[in-house]
Formats: sequence, structure tokens, C-alpha cells
Amino acid sequence: MAVMNSRRITYTEMKDTFVNILTKNGFSTSKAIPCAELFAQSSLDGVPSHGLNRFPEFIRLVKEGYVIPAAEPVLEFSIPVFERWNGNLAAGMLNAQFAMNRAIAMAGSEGLGCVGLSNTNHWMRAGNYGWQAVEAGCIGICFTNTLPNMPAWGGKEPKIGNNPLVLAVPSGDKGVVLDIAMSQFSYGKMGAYFRSGEALPYDGGFDTDGNLTKRAEVILENNFALPFGMWKGAGLSLMLNLICSLVSGGKATHEIGREKEEHSISQFFLCLHPEKLGLDLGEFLEKADEIIADLLHSDTFEGKSVFFPGQQSLKNREENLVNGIPVEGAIWEAVLKMLRE
Amino acid sequence: MAVMNSRRITYTEMKDTFVNILTKNGFSTSKAIPCAELFAQSSLDGVPSHGLNRFPEFIRLVKEGYVIPAAEPVLEFSIPVFERWNGNLAAGMLNAQFAMNRAIAMAGSEGLGCVGLSNTNHWMRAGNYGWQAVEAGCIGICFTNTLPNMPAWGGKEPKIGNNPLVLAVPSGDKGVVLDIAMSQFSYGKMGAYFRSGEALPYDGGFDTDGNLTKRAEVILENNFALPFGMWKGAGLSLMLNLICSLVSGGKATHEIGREKEEHSISQFFLCLHPEKLGLDLGEFLEKADEIIADLLHSDTFEGKSVFFPGQQSLKNREENLVNGIPVEGAIWEAVLKMLRE
Repeated sequence: MAVMNSRRITYTEMKDTFVNILTKNGFSTSKAIPCAELFAQSSLDGVPSHGLNRFPEFIRLVKEGYVIPAAEPVLEFSIPVFERWNGNLAAGMLNAQFAMNRAIAMAGSEGLGCVGLSNTNHWMRAGNYGWQAVEAGCIGICFTNTLPNMPAWGGKEPKIGNNPLVLAVPSGDKGVVLDIAMSQFSYGKMGAYFRSGEALPYDGGFDTDGNLTKRAEVILENNFALPFGMWKGAGLSLMLNLICSLVSGGKATHEIGREKEEHSISQFFLCLHPEKLGLDLGEFLEKADEIIADLLHSDTFEGKSVFFPGQQSLKNREENLVNGIPVEGAIWEAVLKMLRE
Repeated sequence: MAVMNSRRITYTEMKDTFVNILTKNGFSTSKAIPCAELFAQSSLDGVPSHGLNRFPEFIRLVKEGYVIPAAEPVLEFSIPVFERWNGNLAAGMLNAQFAMNRAIAMAGSEGLGCVGLSNTNHWMRAGNYGWQAVEAGCIGICFTNTLPNMPAWGGKEPKIGNNPLVLAVPSGDKGVVLDIAMSQFSYGKMGAYFRSGEALPYDGGFDTDGNLTKRAEVILENNFALPFGMWKGAGLSLMLNLICSLVSGGKATHEIGREKEEHSISQFFLCLHPEKLGLDLGEFLEKADEIIADLLHSDTFEGKSVFFPGQQSLKNREENLVNGIPVEGAIWEAVLKMLRE
């Protein structure tokens, strides 16, 4: 599919623009800056669907009161390796960044650190919090629930969420960060295929008879996205929902689905600190690099390449820092207009 | 596919038979009993591929010195929430059960408990250790690496493992236990389809041109199993290998692949203790049941049903405890013959 990259914007210009709009919408500067950074970082790393392209929707949720700019998470329970926080419907990115920081801090002190976060909002790009963990030298695992937007395996109504899952491991070359939602394709990507008139490259959902299909329009009409790996991703989605809602004491997928808009969701964060687990960090990073090198040396099918999770993000980040971040002109103009509203 | 269930054997008879064969092969009674229980439990729960059917292969590995009956795991590092153990090539099931018990004990005391286990052997049915966690009232997560037996996404040689992953959550009705390997179908299941002459119900691997195929014989010939969810399961497999080999200090998939037989593998165990995390256990179980009830109330496609992870195991267990465990006659006879060898 052709992507309309009509122009490029520097990371700093994008971030500063977001900061200005956020402060016009009730965010203090100290909250607007990290919030803007997390949006701009997503676009910088090549995930505009959860960066620039999602920013107008985020501001709409702020204006409608689903995201509360001045809210702060409140501690509900604490032991040395675990904390439970109520996110108080603050911006999901700020809550998630805060929660991962708490997990990092506990892991730095105790070896492991875990946070259950309830009553929070969409964290936008899940991978950001994986990069946050590896930049702090930690193995990081985090996941979220969502509203019901996929059928269970065998089911013909949305019952499970596409619950993004992140696993992140430090390596000598920055890190390895897997960021996967539980649907084979995101609804955003299927929407793009639908608009282009192209079929999906692989089965991405069900038709109304329950057959697998590559036709995005049928899938989108019914929220019939395919769990990745069929029964396996469907099962994984359920487990992530169980764990994050139970551990955080927050809402489960079916409860989130009762609301008009997706908000008050539940998340889970876990960090392991290699040195506190008695590991030599130099050896750890070297071995991670060895594992990745072995993967990348794979013989490949004609015309194919092998990548490690996060490799494309790192490449995009490097290129976009030099050349600017490609943006769809119409979306960028719409965001600039918000500055003047 | 027709399964040859020529007869049924009680759980006790199966377990006692295993105990007798194990003690003839160097296992002390105190080790033979839990080892036999874990094999028999797999068959009882409807997973004979990692129960009775795998027992002769296990004894071969014992006879050839890959599994050392008298070996004991040795503690290499310990803090209140984490321990690293060297499995010393003891029976994989005993090491795994021991490691999960350590994770349960630490979680019971500290809220979280985590174990890295190196130099261990195949744990047979992964789900057993998930049931172990929920029976102890814990959320349990565990995974293992394996030899390289699947191509990376884009690759045309086995580079990643099918690394089973277990997530287990206590519920009012016993528990919810997801036990998934990273391949869409197990090699055992694909072998059964191949022998039956039937095609797989969904794409299960690649042909030699890298196209997805349902033809088991082509997949089996080249170890070209499909990672579940394609690039997503392939990425997940890599991350699990990174985490379990790095945290345990044990071998990674590519190192395991250098050996003639799969042995000296790496595993990871994590437990969370709901009450130690400040949660009311009654409310926890009730909410887990609510989430499951919502799932099971899904409207379904014609002729389909929705199950929760572990539901079929519980059903099989209940039926097989009453009626005996169905066994393939030839395999059972072969095992009985081992008693007389």
C-alpha cells in the first residue's frame, strides 16, 4: 500500500506542537512534556497510528472528560516488590510510564518489581514502555486489556480484547522489544487495506459464516478480527485480561465493554533487574547479542528477510531523527489547526 | 481423525506401572513417584503425547545418559524473590515441579517468586506446572526453550524453538490454564495428520518455496512448522528464549541445537500470590469466574463452541478418573514389556 508521506517534521517540532496543544487542553507543562514525547516517540519509531495520527482522538477524549489531564495515580497497596495503583483516569501514557518506572525502581532494589494499574486509559503505543524498561537496563513485560473487540475462538460476537503485550530485553545494541496486539492485524491496518481496496495479505478475521477471510470490509463491519494464531491468541488474550484486571483490581474486558467509550482499563507491568538477579551485565548483553546474531544469520526464502523484534523501530528512529518524521499532510494540518482553536 | 483407543487403564495402574519401570531405571522411589504422577497426569488430562506415549522415549534418554535419575538441582543464586538453579540434567519434570514449588513458596512469602532453571531436560506437559501453581492458589507463568525447530519469520531453516508457554490463573472452578507451544500445530499432531493422509485443518507450516501449506509431510520433512500467528508467534518464541536462557544463565536455543539430542535446556517460572498482593481471595475467584462466564456465554458460529483454556483438560480428567484413561493398545503393551526387560 502506498502511504502518503507528503512531508517530514522534526521530532522536536512535533513534540513542541503537541506540548502546546496539550497545555491549551488542561495539561500542566510537567505533564504535557512527557505526554508529547510519548506521542512523538511513536511516530519517530514508525508507529504513527499510535502517535501523530491518534493525537486528535486523544484530545477529543480529553475534551469529553474520559481522560483527565490533572489527575494523578493513587497508591492503593504496596509491598517491596509490588504496588497497586489507581490511575484515576489520567492520561494513559503518563500512567503507564509512571507504572513502568515504579516497576523499574522496585526491580532495581529487590530484583523484581511489579505494578497493577487500574482505572487508566489507552497507553497508545505499547512498545514505548518496553523501550523504557530496556533503557533502564531491565527486562520488561507489560500488557493491557481493552474493550471487547474480537470474537473468542468459535464465537461470533466480540468477547475478548486485542490486549497488546510487550516483552523487552536489553541487548548490547539497545534492546529487543516485541510489541504485539492479540489480533493478527490491527483494526487500523485493516482500515487502510479496506480504503485501498486491497485484500489482506493473510487471513485477518471472519466472515458472517465464521469462515476465515482476507476481506477487511467484512471483518471491520462486525468487529470479527482474527486472534493471532487462532485459538492460541484467543486464549492468550483471555489470560492477559484475567491477570491484569485481577491483579490491578480494575475492570475486565466485559466491564469495559459496557461503557460508551473505552476508558478505565487495567494494566500489568513487570521488571527484572539482571544485576540484582546476580547476573553479570556485560555477559548478559553479549549473550543477548549472540542470540540475535544467530537469528539474523538465518538463511531466508527468496526475497524475504529476518528481523528481530524492535529492529524496524530502531531503524526508523535513526532515519527519522536525521531526516524528520514522515507525516500525512492532512493530519499534520489538522493538528496545527488545533493550536489555533 | 480416528484415535485408536483400544482400552482404558486406571490412573493408579498407569502411575504404578511407570513407578516400577522408573525404579528399574535408576530412579529412587521418592523420585519415581512424582515423575510417574506427572506422566500419568498428562494422559489423564487428555495429553498422551506428553504422557504415556512419550514415556518410552523418556526411558531411552535415561538409558543413554541424557537424563540423570539421581541428579538434584543445585542453587546458584538466591534473593528473597528469585532463585537460580542448575538442574544438573535431572528429569525435566522433577526439576520443573521443584522450580515451580520454589516460585510458589517465594510468592507465598514475598508476593512474587521467580526461578531461572538451567541445564534441565524436557518437562513433558507444560500445563502440569500451571495446574500446580493454581492448586497452590497462585497465578503462575512459566516457559521453556527447546532445540531450534521452526524457521524465523522469513527464514528457511529452523532457528527458533516451539517454546511452550503457560499462563495459569486460579478460579472458583479450579483454574484457567493456557498451555501453548509457539508452533501453530505440534509436530506430534502434524505426524498424526501425515499418517492419516489428511491435510491439516489450517496452514501449519511452509513448503520449500516458503508458501504456507496444510500438507504435513512437506512441513515435517524440513522442520518448517509455522509459528502461531506468523510473525507474532515467531517474535514471541525469540523473546521467551532470550528471557529463559539469560535469566537462568543456561543454554539458548542455538546452543541446544549444537547437541545430538535436545537436553540441557533453560526454563523460567514466575508466581504471584493474590493474598500477599493485598487481594481478597474470595473476590478474586469470583471475578475470575465472572470473566469466564462472560466468555462462555458468547454467541457462537453454527456448530462451534467456546471453551476457556484448560476446560477440556478438566473435562478429560473428570471422565478419565471415572472410566479409566484411554490408551493406544500397542503403546501400553510396549510399556508393559519394559517392566519385564
